[in-house]
Amino acid sequence: MTSHATDSGLLAPVWAGTGAAEATSDHAWVRAMLDVEVALARAQAKLGIIPAAAAERIAAAADPDRIDLVQLAEASRGAANPVVVFVQLFTALIEPAAAEYVHRGSTSQDILDSATMLLAARAFRRVEADLTRAATAVAGLAREYRDTPMAGRTLTQHAVPITFGLKAAGWLTLVLDARDRVRHLLERGLPAQLGGAAGTLSAYAEYATAATGHPHTLDLLAGFSAQLGLPEPVLPWHAVRTPIADLGATAAFVTGALGKIAVDVQGMSRTEVGEVAEPSAEGRGQSSAMPQKRNPVLATLILAAARQTPALSSILTQCLISEDERAAGAWHAEWQPLREVLRLTIGAAHTAAELVTGLEVFPDRLRANLALSGGTIVSERLNVALAPVLGKAPAKKLLARISLASAATGIPFGELLAAAPELAGKLTDVAELLDPARYLGAAGDLVDRALARAD
Amino acid sequence: MTSHATDSGLLAPVWAGTGAAEATSDHAWVRAMLDVEVALARAQAKLGIIPAAAAERIAAAADPDRIDLVQLAEASRGAANPVVVFVQLFTALIEPAAAEYVHRGSTSQDILDSATMLLAARAFRRVEADLTRAATAVAGLAREYRDTPMAGRTLTQHAVPITFGLKAAGWLTLVLDARDRVRHLLERGLPAQLGGAAGTLSAYAEYATAATGHPHTLDLLAGFSAQLGLPEPVLPWHAVRTPIADLGATAAFVTGALGKIAVDVQGMSRTEVGEVAEPSAEGRGQSSAMPQKRNPVLATLILAAARQTPALSSILTQCLISEDERAAGAWHAEWQPLREVLRLTIGAAHTAAELVTGLEVFPDRLRANLALSGGTIVSERLNVALAPVLGKAPAKKLLARISLASAATGIPFGELLAAAPELAGKLTDVAELLDPARYLGAAGDLVDRALARAD
Amino acid sequence: MTSHATDSGLLAPVWAGTGAAEATSDHAWVRAMLDVEVALARAQAKLGIIPAAAAERIAAAADPDRIDLVQLAEASRGAANPVVVFVQLFTALIEPAAAEYVHRGSTSQDILDSATMLLAARAFRRVEADLTRAATAVAGLAREYRDTPMAGRTLTQHAVPITFGLKAAGWLTLVLDARDRVRHLLERGLPAQLGGAAGTLSAYAEYATAATGHPHTLDLLAGFSAQLGLPEPVLPWHAVRTPIADLGATAAFVTGALGKIAVDVQGMSRTEVGEVAEPSAEGRGQSSAMPQKRNPVLATLILAAARQTPALSSILTQCLISEDERAAGAWHAEWQPLREVLRLTIGAAHTAAELVTGLEVFPDRLRANLALSGGTIVSERLNVALAPVLGKAPAKKLLARISLASAATGIPFGELLAAAPELAGKLTDVAELLDPARYLGAAGDLVDRALARAD
Amino acid sequence: MTSHATDSGLLAPVWAGTGAAEATSDHAWVRAMLDVEVALARAQAKLGIIPAAAAERIAAAADPDRIDLVQLAEASRGAANPVVVFVQLFTALIEPAAAEYVHRGSTSQDILDSATMLLAARAFRRVEADLTRAATAVAGLAREYRDTPMAGRTLTQHAVPITFGLKAAGWLTLVLDARDRVRHLLERGLPAQLGGAAGTLSAYAEYATAATGHPHTLDLLAGFSAQLGLPEPVLPWHAVRTPIADLGATAAFVTGALGKIAVDVQGMSRTEVGEVAEPSAEGRGQSSAMPQKRNPVLATLILAAARQTPALSSILTQCLISEDERAAGAWHAEWQPLREVLRLTIGAAHTAAELVTGLEVFPDRLRANLALSGGTIVSERLNVALAPVLGKAPAKKLLARISLASAATGIPFGELLAAAPELAGKLTDVAELLDPARYLGAAGDLVDRALARAD
Repeated sequence: MTSHATDSGLLAPVWAGTGAAEATSDHAWVRAMLDVEVALARAQAKLGIIPAAAAERIAAAADPDRIDLVQLAEASRGAANPVVVFVQLFTALIEPAAAEYVHRGSTSQDILDSATMLLAARAFRRVEADLTRAATAVAGLAREYRDTPMAGRTLTQHAVPITFGLKAAGWLTLVLDARDRVRHLLERGLPAQLGGAAGTLSAYAEYATAATGHPHTLDLLAGFSAQLGLPEPVLPWHAVRTPIADLGATAAFVTGALGKIAVDVQGMSRTEVGEVAEPSAEGRGQSSAMPQKRNPVLATLILAAARQTPALSSILTQCLISEDERAAGAWHAEWQPLREVLRLTIGAAHTAAELVTGLEVFPDRLRANLALSGGTIVSERLNVALAPVLGKAPAKKLLARISLASAATGIPFGELLAAAPELAGKLTDVAELLDPARYLGAAGDLVDRALARAD
Repeated sequence: MTSHATDSGLLAPVWAGTGAAEATSDHAWVRAMLDVEVALARAQAKLGIIPAAAAERIAAAADPDRIDLVQLAEASRGAANPVVVFVQLFTALIEPAAAEYVHRGSTSQDILDSATMLLAARAFRRVEADLTRAATAVAGLAREYRDTPMAGRTLTQHAVPITFGLKAAGWLTLVLDARDRVRHLLERGLPAQLGGAAGTLSAYAEYATAATGHPHTLDLLAGFSAQLGLPEPVLPWHAVRTPIADLGATAAFVTGALGKIAVDVQGMSRTEVGEVAEPSAEGRGQSSAMPQKRNPVLATLILAAARQTPALSSILTQCLISEDERAAGAWHAEWQPLREVLRLTIGAAHTAAELVTGLEVFPDRLRANLALSGGTIVSERLNVALAPVLGKAPAKKLLARISLASAATGIPFGELLAAAPELAGKLTDVAELLDPARYLGAAGDLVDRALARAD
Repeated sequence: MTSHATDSGLLAPVWAGTGAAEATSDHAWVRAMLDVEVALARAQAKLGIIPAAAAERIAAAADPDRIDLVQLAEASRGAANPVVVFVQLFTALIEPAAAEYVHRGSTSQDILDSATMLLAARAFRRVEADLTRAATAVAGLAREYRDTPMAGRTLTQHAVPITFGLKAAGWLTLVLDARDRVRHLLERGLPAQLGGAAGTLSAYAEYATAATGHPHTLDLLAGFSAQLGLPEPVLPWHAVRTPIADLGATAAFVTGALGKIAVDVQGMSRTEVGEVAEPSAEGRGQSSAMPQKRNPVLATLILAAARQTPALSSILTQCLISEDERAAGAWHAEWQPLREVLRLTIGAAHTAAELVTGLEVFPDRLRANLALSGGTIVSERLNVALAPVLGKAPAKKLLARISLASAATGIPFGELLAAAPELAGKLTDVAELLDPARYLGAAGDLVDRALARAD
Repeated sequence: MTSHATDSGLLAPVWAGTGAAEATSDHAWVRAMLDVEVALARAQAKLGIIPAAAAERIAAAADPDRIDLVQLAEASRGAANPVVVFVQLFTALIEPAAAEYVHRGSTSQDILDSATMLLAARAFRRVEADLTRAATAVAGLAREYRDTPMAGRTLTQHAVPITFGLKAAGWLTLVLDARDRVRHLLERGLPAQLGGAAGTLSAYAEYATAATGHPHTLDLLAGFSAQLGLPEPVLPWHAVRTPIADLGATAAFVTGALGKIAVDVQGMSRTEVGEVAEPSAEGRGQSSAMPQKRNPVLATLILAAARQTPALSSILTQCLISEDERAAGAWHAEWQPLREVLRLTIGAAHTAAELVTGLEVFPDRLRANLALSGGTIVSERLNVALAPVLGKAPAKKLLARISLASAATGIPFGELLAAAPELAGKLTDVAELLDPARYLGAAGDLVDRALARAD
């Protein structure tokens, strides 16, 4: 029965096989909950609140493989959270003499929130590493193609020339923006949780006073956070959900930023465009029935993630509206969306690193597409150049006329322009004016600025 | 490794243990995909496109337990969907002579979409049954408490009296509205999918023509749908995502409707209000550290679901924006949110049926809270009654003055009113005017109207 | 000052100038609120609850131009809704003898909800008409291009041939699905609201009893609904928000469905693809600086709407979670998103009708793009045809090899295929096999099915 | 006609009358667009690209009152953005000799994005000021009620005592977290936009070279940003939408954080709870028909905002997925949701400052509610205290039994406890144990920590 009631990522190829499952599975959550109980016991032992030997026996029993996940999940309905039954199951694994010291003074939310922060920190460290990998690769593209012209496209139409380096510099900016946000989150955003039943740490204090004569509340808060390697919160945050909202916003930003790269890769991969192709790998992007196909599957996976996270993240932000000292529903609505955004973010970052690292670029097609419009892609420049020659309005009118004529007849724009009687003898350098490679504005400088930030 | 990479509902007690996991697990999806391949083979066999014996051999091999879910999930990244590898793994299980007939002419999306519709239909049939259970129980509450007065509350404040029956009639209306939408969806909304590579059924036709001399496309569409017991679509809907949008909207409505019941139960359960309590059960709603607590856990679970589904459903609606003949990302973004809304809807309906079936109602507290304001709860009535006696404006002024005085002094509103010199000798029936039970408007009739719809 | 504090659609060109502003402006809302007050007075007059002459004086005063919208809006903060101050301002406009009869027994939410339903019904009638216009035009495209082959694209890549008629048939299906949902909503989904302070109609009953000896509650509910031309609700729905959720879901579906058309038009308009162009109009889609551009602006406007409505609609669905008899925040959160989805839906439907009515189709480019891959677009067919000749696996291998060779050398796939030694003497009809126009599966029949539904 | 097509905040009392309308109206946007055109002209004049006198004539014509907003909005459909027509209308206002220098080398998105950043910066400065006002007031509450016990509530039920100061300290933390995010955004997050047609600044360079012999692109980027007082971007960000995503996330955080305060105020204001009341003001929170009511309208307004912004913000985050050099739909989908989140955030911050500044706290009711459970609110403490006396399990059993008996009989928990034979002679200090004021854990210290951050 058990195996039938589980997910392994079948419907989420963006994260299946990327390590996201192991990092965020039920098993990982139980392991993190055990880590939290052990950290609490050890912190209490250090302060003399419980015996040091008890803490070590608690630690010794903390084996996630000894807890039946399906049984735990199904029994958790009674408390509306998994911690109550988890503590019962875990307590049963501890030597009797130490068992009473586990979870001492604690409340479900302390355990689950702290475990979630542990897992989130680990997840975002993976994400950070993949963003660094991606940044390196994208910076390489920006550098390599710094001066390679291609068609700039706006509202789906050729506009003016850009360089592929400039496009990559935009991608790089987003990857670095994403990494900045992840680092910011890792530095301060994911604190430990310890508050007891309603955030006063009262039962912790009561036990500590009984054992040591001193409530040791702030000491415990500090010691527990240190044990977990998580930042210490100013206050318990059972109903002050800044960390959850931050986590959601960061995840949505990361996947959205990578989504921009994905949508560009898809556009450039279209059969009619053909400017890039995803790194090929055995079996990737192929269709058994249509051997010619080379689907941009990595971009598709990333985009699938980027289309899900903003809405999932909005659930987390909405959970800031948490009534009372611990909320009846808002907290509970966080868990699954939070797990899902972690997975999608891990998966999208992993996949993006894979995508940009081996991206194939086809300079011939960049060049061919740039020439496709027969020169109209520099009409903006001609607008500027012809105005002093013909007057602003006549120049515009001429260009519009030639543009239409070129589209209608198929005769290249440049040819028609060279033959225009109005211009006879007035322009000496038509070829240069029409050369897209000489109309790149500040593209090179801008690439350098973006690269400077990456260093 | 495998067991570590899976979910069992640990973070979703609203559906853990309700059958939702089994109905929507990876295993269930693989089983449904097998059902679809078998239906295709049988439909093709009936038309003479493949040998009947081959179809039966295909059916005989269709055992989900023989497919390794983790291996399948992880290998699915290469195609960005699980069907390509699934077909390889399944084909390997079929006797060689029949193996070439599996998945004949088909495309990944035909299999996955049809499987999804099968599972969604099964899921919503569960939901329908639970909504019927809930409707029966809520109708019982409406009937039993048809004439039981309680405080009506608006913007958090006591307003005028209502009956608990009327409140339950509102709940009933929502449950029936939800069930109507589910039934509508089940009748027409979840069609089979069959289109081939780009929706023309071309390869199906090609194989059929080779075998029978006739393309048999529409015959196959009809036969395949009949095999699955799903409605036949007018057109393949690879990029015409009406069924997905409908499914999402229905799920969001169902959980939202149940969320209204949950939020009312929570409000009425507050310690200071105490008008209802959830059905008690061993271990439910208790706190190990605080024995006095009886948390409204079922309402909390339902509310957690209701706070997630609108955003999840918005992802599905957004997927209507599907480019080309099959989309690169929009389709892929549907799968996991769709599974999640099915689970949340199954879980919420199951939990709501449980909640309303045994809801405890405390008439003493309904009465006590109604009396709490010492009569001000019928001030609206007094407004109407005193206007012809004193004039509209003076009446209003008097009531406001007495209201404030009552709040300030603690002397009951009715007492102060009876003593007001302006009213001396002018009102004979103050007690009746002040009786909340005689100021219930059309509550009883309205309850009857709602009940009539349930019959 | 006043004029500085307003919107006219500057940031929403999808609906500016489409009539959406007038249909949903503050002025329209005030007019509808006046309509509701008049309907209430007349319904009460018909039942003898207030004098008929008073009702007519109330009607005579109901001029929205006499109410200062900015003053009203700003004063409405005190009550958290605009009705309280609106009633004060309106009452001041009525002849004194009739003034006391206005809003008799009523509550803010009765007025605002009923006004909203009036406006929503009018808005969706516009939408329905535009969807009908769009359906006619799209059906025309499906009919005209029923047999015009073009490249079918999946995951951004050429897959197999389809017809432009089949693509249009998919659009038609979505437009008809959208219109069905709008009609369904208009028939039953937008009821009048009348409940009084907490849904019991108590003050209505009190006034009616005082005037006529009979509470007349259900009579009033029926009469009031009839006056407004809106369906009569079973129950007051102050906190039973089915109509709002339905309205949101319908709007999201309509815009999403039209978004599919928009995204296809954009893809087909890309400079490299060039298969369609939006209907040209003076000044539309042009760039002053780049005369060659013809931006798909109508599709862009529609898509902008389709990207907003699912999230806006999720706010409305979430408002099903309305506590008590009238909610403190959930109701208030509906108003602005509801107005916005009405506007976006009106605008998107209007714009879509405009887009599809004059859409230019370029058969030459359809043909040219189909030929772009030199025949590989029918490789699926060759897979089927060659399997019996060479065996399944060797056939596949051959096709993959030729496919790659064609891509690498630029020699057309068909040419390489004809020259393949493995096939020498084995295929007589290579040209026919390679003709995309002969590999269209059931496209024509499917178009006919879709058209049959439109009739 | 014009006046009929506008909004003034009728459906958004959270921001009507708070200055939000003027800060974000169409008029404000046009003014900001004029500011941007002037800044561009002046920056170009400083570099010698256009004559200084022309720049000043452009500045002199920049009067938003001379532009007809409705005409502009309606004509903007042709370009799918308002800038094209705006430039035409503005150009017509400029003295002919200078007119040709306006908008030189520019593109619509440069103007609109920069204008949006100007307005967003002004909006968030308002928000920051209101958050500071709110922080001061909330800090005052935390300080004043540092040691005032009240019932802590979890999952709607009394849990253990807290202090009102601790609750206020949680609010303070959220307000400060919100202000930190706003400040962070104001410092770096809202850069100027300048890129020209496709982000290379090509036409700017072309004009500059013609006039000065030097392209001056980076100089112009710096000078233009300085003119606007906005940060200079590393790159043009036409399709690199970090600033928009950041703005949305910040707004959602701010309103969500304030939503927590609102939902607590509502819960504490409930008739049965009565612990706080909103600051009273003429006409605020009153009902004409029900004089006893004092609705928490400010909290309701804030909550209405907080329920809208997460979804609106998700639209903005989704717009990170912007294809090409300028997107066809993603950009256009930002504008209206962005305006709406600015308004809601301005309104919510203004309203929150108003709410917390004059919040009335009723210590009598805090005390009365704390006593409501007759002592069970400290059962957690008794659990700890009785365990060493009776053994852990028997203690728990005793407490559960007494708890139930107290609830059933109405006899205070403390009385039953004192009479329990098991405890006879074993507890000397029952009264102290039962005193909620002596079971406050670290509440006071935690308040001090939160206050220290505010200083």
